[in-house]
Amino acid sequence: MTHTVKDKQRLLARVRRIRGQVEAIERALESEAGCETVMHLIAAMRGATAGLMAVVVEDHVQNHLVDEAAHPGALDRDAAAQLLEIVRTYLK
Amino acid sequence: MTHTVKDKQRLLARVRRIRGQVEAIERALESEAGCETVMHLIAAMRGATAGLMAVVVEDHVQNHLVDEAAHPGALDRDAAAQLLEIVRTYLK
Amino acid sequence: MTHTVKDKQRLLARVRRIRGQVEAIERALESEAGCETVMHLIAAMRGATAGLMAVVVEDHVQNHLVDEAAHPGALDRDAAAQLLEIVRTYLK
Amino acid sequence: MTHTVKDKQRLLARVRRIRGQVEAIERALESEAGCETVMHLIAAMRGATAGLMAVVVEDHVQNHLVDEAAHPGALDRDAAAQLLEIVRTYLK
Repeated sequence: MTHTVKDKQRLLARVRRIRGQVEAIERALESEAGCETVMHLIAAMRGATAGLMAVVVEDHVQNHLVDEAAHPGALDRDAAAQLLEIVRTYLK
Repeated sequence: MTHTVKDKQRLLARVRRIRGQVEAIERALESEAGCETVMHLIAAMRGATAGLMAVVVEDHVQNHLVDEAAHPGALDRDAAAQLLEIVRTYLK
Repeated sequence: MTHTVKDKQRLLARVRRIRGQVEAIERALESEAGCETVMHLIAAMRGATAGLMAVVVEDHVQNHLVDEAAHPGALDRDAAAQLLEIVRTYLK
Repeated sequence: MTHTVKDKQRLLARVRRIRGQVEAIERALESEAGCETVMHLIAAMRGATAGLMAVVVEDHVQNHLVDEAAHPGALDRDAAAQLLEIVRTYLK
């Protein structure tokens, strides 16, 4: 799905950060940290996951809804931007 | 945005149902119903609102991302369906 | 559930604002406003609904989890505040 | 926060499953899997995260809002159950 090496690296960096957050949750549970700490760590990880999904959905909308080579200019960029704006309000 | 009279009536029916749910919340507060009742009424209204948004987003994706008259067949129906499936998991 | 006349008025004001937002969605659909307009109106109404739920949940946590008359001081205010902070991140 | 060894093991099992899901997303991105695959993997991981949060919130509500040793029986179990039911609808 990644369309350039740069995009791929950016996505992988996000996923690795999330993996680090999951490992921090694991350590917090192992060391019997308080509920408050664990709830905050999970909430932060959930936020990062929403951010990752937003990037992937954006990529999907901009690159896969229309085959740009076969139908150049067919995707209405304004309509796509409006959709992504709404999707982001739900991805929080 | 509504593309046929039937679609419009279907959307209006959804909105009117939501208005009825909001009025029920108002009555519950006025009659000092318990928190539990009020929380359930709000949760149900929220679910109906998510359902309405899902229909409008679906309409937007299927009818506005590509001008079908100018670019017939340009919207990848499979990619659009995958997008909507994901959007729906977040609209719950 | 409302514990003072002031609280009740504050909650009713929120619900009436939401009813006004639902009526605006209805008018937008009737006048065949664009999807973008309708999606924004729904997103705003959803946000207001989340705000209403947050207030009711807060009221529930602070007033109903412990019968203060029977068990004075039994509710751990810090633990309750931490819970509500997490609930609010999900209520957006 | 975990109150018995069994609870702790159960929570750790959940977190490790999530870590496995994150690693699967990482592998999918590295092997340039399609957006559809990646979106599904993220949605599944998000669901598992919500499940983990639900368990931790439940633990927090049942064990930390009231110090049971100091105030036996002070937590209204019905009110707590109603709260958790509502929280779960938002944690999906």
